[in-house]
Amino acid sequence: MHDVLKGDTLQEECGVFGVWGTPNAPQLTLYGLYALQHRGQESAGMAVVEEQGLRFVRGMGLVSEVFGQDIHTLSGCSSIGHVRYSTTGGNTPQNIQPLVVSYRQGQLALAHNGNIVNARALRRQLEDEGSVFQSSLDTEVIAHLIAHHPQESLTESIRASLGQVQGAYALVFLTTKQLVGVRDAHGIRPLVLGELDGAYLLASETCALDAVGADFVREVNPGEMVVIDDDGVQAIQVLEPQPMRLCVFEHIYFARPDSQFNGWNVHAVRKELGRALARTYPVEADLVTGVPDSSISAAAGYAEEAGLPFEMGLVKNRYIGRTFIQPSQTQRDFSVKVKLNPLKRLIEGKRVVLVDDSIVRGTTSRRIVRMLREAGATEVHVRISSPPYRYACHYGIDTSSPGELIASKCDVEGIRELIEADSLAYLTVEGLFDVMGSDAYCTACFDGDYPVDVNLATGKRGLEVY
Amino acid sequence: MHDVLKGDTLQEECGVFGVWGTPNAPQLTLYGLYALQHRGQESAGMAVVEEQGLRFVRGMGLVSEVFGQDIHTLSGCSSIGHVRYSTTGGNTPQNIQPLVVSYRQGQLALAHNGNIVNARALRRQLEDEGSVFQSSLDTEVIAHLIAHHPQESLTESIRASLGQVQGAYALVFLTTKQLVGVRDAHGIRPLVLGELDGAYLLASETCALDAVGADFVREVNPGEMVVIDDDGVQAIQVLEPQPMRLCVFEHIYFARPDSQFNGWNVHAVRKELGRALARTYPVEADLVTGVPDSSISAAAGYAEEAGLPFEMGLVKNRYIGRTFIQPSQTQRDFSVKVKLNPLKRLIEGKRVVLVDDSIVRGTTSRRIVRMLREAGATEVHVRISSPPYRYACHYGIDTSSPGELIASKCDVEGIRELIEADSLAYLTVEGLFDVMGSDAYCTACFDGDYPVDVNLATGKRGLEVY
Amino acid sequence: MHDVLKGDTLQEECGVFGVWGTPNAPQLTLYGLYALQHRGQESAGMAVVEEQGLRFVRGMGLVSEVFGQDIHTLSGCSSIGHVRYSTTGGNTPQNIQPLVVSYRQGQLALAHNGNIVNARALRRQLEDEGSVFQSSLDTEVIAHLIAHHPQESLTESIRASLGQVQGAYALVFLTTKQLVGVRDAHGIRPLVLGELDGAYLLASETCALDAVGADFVREVNPGEMVVIDDDGVQAIQVLEPQPMRLCVFEHIYFARPDSQFNGWNVHAVRKELGRALARTYPVEADLVTGVPDSSISAAAGYAEEAGLPFEMGLVKNRYIGRTFIQPSQTQRDFSVKVKLNPLKRLIEGKRVVLVDDSIVRGTTSRRIVRMLREAGATEVHVRISSPPYRYACHYGIDTSSPGELIASKCDVEGIRELIEADSLAYLTVEGLFDVMGSDAYCTACFDGDYPVDVNLATGKRGLEVY
Amino acid sequence: MHDVLKGDTLQEECGVFGVWGTPNAPQLTLYGLYALQHRGQESAGMAVVEEQGLRFVRGMGLVSEVFGQDIHTLSGCSSIGHVRYSTTGGNTPQNIQPLVVSYRQGQLALAHNGNIVNARALRRQLEDEGSVFQSSLDTEVIAHLIAHHPQESLTESIRASLGQVQGAYALVFLTTKQLVGVRDAHGIRPLVLGELDGAYLLASETCALDAVGADFVREVNPGEMVVIDDDGVQAIQVLEPQPMRLCVFEHIYFARPDSQFNGWNVHAVRKELGRALARTYPVEADLVTGVPDSSISAAAGYAEEAGLPFEMGLVKNRYIGRTFIQPSQTQRDFSVKVKLNPLKRLIEGKRVVLVDDSIVRGTTSRRIVRMLREAGATEVHVRISSPPYRYACHYGIDTSSPGELIASKCDVEGIRELIEADSLAYLTVEGLFDVMGSDAYCTACFDGDYPVDVNLATGKRGLEVY
Repeated sequence: MHDVLKGDTLQEECGVFGVWGTPNAPQLTLYGLYALQHRGQESAGMAVVEEQGLRFVRGMGLVSEVFGQDIHTLSGCSSIGHVRYSTTGGNTPQNIQPLVVSYRQGQLALAHNGNIVNARALRRQLEDEGSVFQSSLDTEVIAHLIAHHPQESLTESIRASLGQVQGAYALVFLTTKQLVGVRDAHGIRPLVLGELDGAYLLASETCALDAVGADFVREVNPGEMVVIDDDGVQAIQVLEPQPMRLCVFEHIYFARPDSQFNGWNVHAVRKELGRALARTYPVEADLVTGVPDSSISAAAGYAEEAGLPFEMGLVKNRYIGRTFIQPSQTQRDFSVKVKLNPLKRLIEGKRVVLVDDSIVRGTTSRRIVRMLREAGATEVHVRISSPPYRYACHYGIDTSSPGELIASKCDVEGIRELIEADSLAYLTVEGLFDVMGSDAYCTACFDGDYPVDVNLATGKRGLEVY
Repeated sequence: MHDVLKGDTLQEECGVFGVWGTPNAPQLTLYGLYALQHRGQESAGMAVVEEQGLRFVRGMGLVSEVFGQDIHTLSGCSSIGHVRYSTTGGNTPQNIQPLVVSYRQGQLALAHNGNIVNARALRRQLEDEGSVFQSSLDTEVIAHLIAHHPQESLTESIRASLGQVQGAYALVFLTTKQLVGVRDAHGIRPLVLGELDGAYLLASETCALDAVGADFVREVNPGEMVVIDDDGVQAIQVLEPQPMRLCVFEHIYFARPDSQFNGWNVHAVRKELGRALARTYPVEADLVTGVPDSSISAAAGYAEEAGLPFEMGLVKNRYIGRTFIQPSQTQRDFSVKVKLNPLKRLIEGKRVVLVDDSIVRGTTSRRIVRMLREAGATEVHVRISSPPYRYACHYGIDTSSPGELIASKCDVEGIRELIEADSLAYLTVEGLFDVMGSDAYCTACFDGDYPVDVNLATGKRGLEVY
Repeated sequence: MHDVLKGDTLQEECGVFGVWGTPNAPQLTLYGLYALQHRGQESAGMAVVEEQGLRFVRGMGLVSEVFGQDIHTLSGCSSIGHVRYSTTGGNTPQNIQPLVVSYRQGQLALAHNGNIVNARALRRQLEDEGSVFQSSLDTEVIAHLIAHHPQESLTESIRASLGQVQGAYALVFLTTKQLVGVRDAHGIRPLVLGELDGAYLLASETCALDAVGADFVREVNPGEMVVIDDDGVQAIQVLEPQPMRLCVFEHIYFARPDSQFNGWNVHAVRKELGRALARTYPVEADLVTGVPDSSISAAAGYAEEAGLPFEMGLVKNRYIGRTFIQPSQTQRDFSVKVKLNPLKRLIEGKRVVLVDDSIVRGTTSRRIVRMLREAGATEVHVRISSPPYRYACHYGIDTSSPGELIASKCDVEGIRELIEADSLAYLTVEGLFDVMGSDAYCTACFDGDYPVDVNLATGKRGLEVY
Repeated sequence: MHDVLKGDTLQEECGVFGVWGTPNAPQLTLYGLYALQHRGQESAGMAVVEEQGLRFVRGMGLVSEVFGQDIHTLSGCSSIGHVRYSTTGGNTPQNIQPLVVSYRQGQLALAHNGNIVNARALRRQLEDEGSVFQSSLDTEVIAHLIAHHPQESLTESIRASLGQVQGAYALVFLTTKQLVGVRDAHGIRPLVLGELDGAYLLASETCALDAVGADFVREVNPGEMVVIDDDGVQAIQVLEPQPMRLCVFEHIYFARPDSQFNGWNVHAVRKELGRALARTYPVEADLVTGVPDSSISAAAGYAEEAGLPFEMGLVKNRYIGRTFIQPSQTQRDFSVKVKLNPLKRLIEGKRVVLVDDSIVRGTTSRRIVRMLREAGATEVHVRISSPPYRYACHYGIDTSSPGELIASKCDVEGIRELIEADSLAYLTVEGLFDVMGSDAYCTACFDGDYPVDVNLATGKRGLEVY
């Protein structure tokens, strides 16, 4: 699963970061966002507590593009940041986070990773009470809820507001007085707490803590609020805690290999998934290869377990980015080969096991299988290190429209035919849980078992045309 | 009064434009904004009714910079636009207009020229009721008021909202159903109605109608609301009408010479002011010159009445714009001479009458007087085509901080000494009214007679730090 | 003659500036180029003597755009600069000046205003001797000639090189040792010498000296070379001097009103031309108006002499620049009205004298005449403050292709019909010389009397496709 | 060897590409340059044969940045392209390739990978003959030599010119009539020939042929000229062929893993080098890891041969590019950890073999060793898949200044101490040749055996200050 073909890919929607009480907070946030850049490349932003209040820099593009000129104008000891991937149509400037608002208690900055499934209903209700919206972000709904809960303290307002909210979220809030992080009742979206020389940090992944030299303290618990101010950290269980149901795709695909969740290193999990796949679905072959970069760990695990050579069968062009210049319509399509090149010398005359982490629409898989055959592979056996992806995510992952999920329409044999592989096998949900040693994961995309009711869900976060 | 010295100048804060019901509405709005560009060069924006709702393009910079790439992506039959000059500190992206919001009735775009004097109090009250603000614009206060007035129709909501508002404003509103324009009860800020092939337009000045080939219909009356939709125009007197008190500086300085207000062409008014000045304060001299560009008309009038030659005594560099590269601190200041060059040949050995339209701090006037003397003028007599500017404006003009208004601290003789002129004379308010043939003008900056109570005023529109 | 219609205008091709021996040379050059910006807006450049040799900054666009970021990185006591207007097709980055080369004597920077008529022949000959060209500039031909003249000194090499060159030029050269300026044998293109606190400067016009506070010393003579180094200025007559034949259009149209040539202030000349026109071709009328900005002086002169009111009949939008967003093809043309608006109030019911400085193709004049009639003018009498423009310039002015010069095809009555005026009159060449009090001007564009043989001329400077 | 620390890295200086006789030549060149982007990221350019002659687009930055807007304006059937890495101080716009010149035979575009060791002497001689230079490129020297050889044909001029040239080069030339490629007499810099549907291509690496779907035909031989025109390909041995001495670092580090030279796939060579290292310098350890991305293949080979697990011990941030925002001076250095993060879970308590491809100054190696220890490694054994890098390259590789090459100052034990490793071992030159099965490589950087006399060499290509 990778970006060769637009639309044939899963997209994390956001990464969040926050730090309280250390000089160079903007610089730390910058590096934290660099480390979380894989979670969103469409826009980035940062809000900082400056002497005169909150100030922010936000823009479309990569972290390096957004903050290039402006980072040195920001100073302060506390800040939050955000990177965003946006679904088609919603990638407009007014949707860049953090959202910074002014309300009865003063200024408030918010950044959000996840999806509020009852956002549309809440928004309608707020509008009926006279609220005015300026974005299509469900994050803005949360800001309005807070402004409508005139409790004494921000934390009480947040608690009351989240009582109305259904969904998956890791939220960070910043005021001139405190930094607050909250994780939804099931812990679907990740949020970790770190510490650096007495200051505290929040981040979507541990790799962002490593990037700034901070120590990992612990994950924020499901339904827990962490309040950080000059007196230190205070943890409050603001929502009835539910069994942990971390999004399993954080481990399978989204997170960086050096991050860890639920006590498991991401790379290690992927390698174990590959091993499990090799044990369950062995095949006579000459070599194992993976689709760079996300499937490399799983492929290495498969190879080790199978006793087969693990080879770099496909070389990825590291300079193809958001700004790749598309070929014009009228000419044949070179673009896949510019992005991914099979290593003919290795492939030629060989029976190849191709390990990938998932199949969305199947078109990319078919292209890669064909590419390997053109490079001389005599057989191509595809092994997927997760179960078939059958159900749309309503918790912050941008799947193609559910009707295009190939596994919702075809059985494994049908998919195999479509992608033109000699054989195809997936892990099962049970196999997955065996590897993880736990079922503390949301696997709704595999089995439709949604931990949060999605009857209210609107599918996409884009609530309005802007 | 011009831009040689930052801070020594008056700044109009905005221009608005709107059109309903004609193809190429975005292109018409573009050209309307080009024509209004002198009213604001810091940012520009446009909202258009497209098939899927309102869409907007906004940005920092000149009209040509903001819409360069994007204008051809906009299409629709109705749109509003805005150009903005912002006071120091408030020139941030979130303050660019039109403001586009979504509320219980759907989408609404607003653009505003003027100032709401009780904005801070209204905002506090709205925040107490749970409102969330994302800018420091008083325009946003109006949006919230409308959302809090759940009348059947937008026009009723606007009427009710404006009942709470104290201030000077020309407002244009756009929804998918109608274009609405409103002018404050005193008509302090201008708004005119035009017509083009059956379609109707609104603009701050008539020059914007000319620019798109539209006919001038009439000015919007004080306290009047003009509602334009597919059925044509409907006029409603939404506020108790007060005697017209148009900002007199529209005629003296802000408006383009080819615009007209209260039945008077701006250039013609300026020329008459110059004539009146010559009659009242004649002086023995060899030639008359004006400060380009705004004082040229008055200087020509003075010369004609006095029977003296009108000469181009100062040549302005037309390529000095917002992006002028300032000299570094450590060197002597060339910058005035780069911007304005005296025509030595004409000036040398001559007694010069220098006509200007106003004096703010006096530092620019002194520089120009010195410049003329260095060029060989034997005498420099300064004539100002308006009364002394003594009181801060609270209705949308950015005066330097009132403490810096030289006429609030010195009498005419004191100012003459400060600017090093041989003589100095101002028009009186009565002289002004004589020329105008009417007192239907706000002259608060001269005499402190504020038509709208300013006890609630906050001086600057920047309500919060952003 | 102005820029309302592309192609219906005369274009100066360049301005040059140089300074030797004063701190802040780059800053002085920057302001000098700002003052010369009207001579070329397509590109700009500067070369500076830094400690390690010559360094340069060059780019497409206005002075403010090209030097915005980089000016503060330049330091040194000596530099030259250039602004350029380029003919269609030749406005490519490799043609930006100053040209900076390295040859047997070290580094050399050159900047040029004018046109070498035998450039093509010289270039062919140089290529036959093994020279390699990287631009289509005739300036590069001069650099090669210098490199092929292995005299002891640069000045001797320049003298020998210019002996081979036919054409019109004002040239400035910079090495780490000296600044050199040369003017062609007829003085067709202007070049003036200035002085500032003991340092010397060269510039195309005196307004650039004024801009930096320098004193005007004198014009460089025809065929004279001025050599400036740490020992002061030395003047050498390097070419057999010919009678002065300054381009008459410098006075009529190109130069800034505050500049002076041949002892005459440009504004004053224009005004006298207007007066002469009024004496020779009077007409019964109600008012006189000019086309802003270049014809204002002549119109004022006409009005004074005729005893008619001089009025601002046409208002120009000051914000229409290079980046004006053109209307799309499919809609009616608003663009002229956006750029120029007639002042209806003044025009209505009046007999108007419209003074302009020249007519190139006639299409712009017709548009303006029509615009005045639509504004209510009962008669429009056009008066041109120069003789009919009949012959292409080969000395550095970009005329439309000669076949499009309306005066080369029609007599005055024919042109009058074409532009739809009630009457039309031009000054004669004799009338022009009477005003000037001298015939020391090149008037080839009026009478075909080319001071430099143009049989070798190539018409356009663009020698090669790049 | 990677880019964590500036200055502690080897830099390829260029990649070249050419195609003759196929529609969409600019698009093919674009994708070819994307594939060669790893060979140079500072600037890029392309020259195309259009109807009116050669036209080019060049700029600073990545391929995607330079051609973003302009690629669709280029059309033609033949073109050449270039990507460039430039040494400090020489990264100025006038040094961007291809160089496009006009000389006696018409237009010529050149692009060059390599270094001319006698460039300075040739340039001095050319200057003495009257040549004018506009860049500090030795490529420009070649253009002048060609212009000084008035042979009948371009190919004869090139042959004669290269007879004077000492150095390493892969050159491509483009005129409106033909595409020419030449490789130096020792074949130090690579150049391959490809074919696509009857059209022929030249490229620095085979991966660029793969990217456009072309077939690899063969490598251009040492001293061979390949002339491509509408009649097909013609090969001429223009220089006395010498034994092949391909730069060994193409295999070790520079080239993309999917390219092949001398019949060897780059990835396969690297893996074999790793295996040889494991056989020669085994060590008791728990796991093997490599520095991403260049050392991954060698590390995998080592692991396989040693029977140890190959692990992803270091995770590289894929979003750190040229535009990485450096931390300010006053704060501690986070930047390495932002770029490279050790996978603590894997490393903790383990004896680690770290495979890298070379050590330049040693500072980066020390940082990585420390990073692994901080992550819990109990031992760190460094294995380098090439011999000690002792001598400066004069053939197109930018080594740090030779005095900073740690292996020129210390023996292996000294280096081990410096980088704080538990053990350190390098391959020998003989070991390298054993793996390659041939000595057809330039190994001057290891043993000082320079195939081309470097007494004339100037060390750096930057001949002049610009």
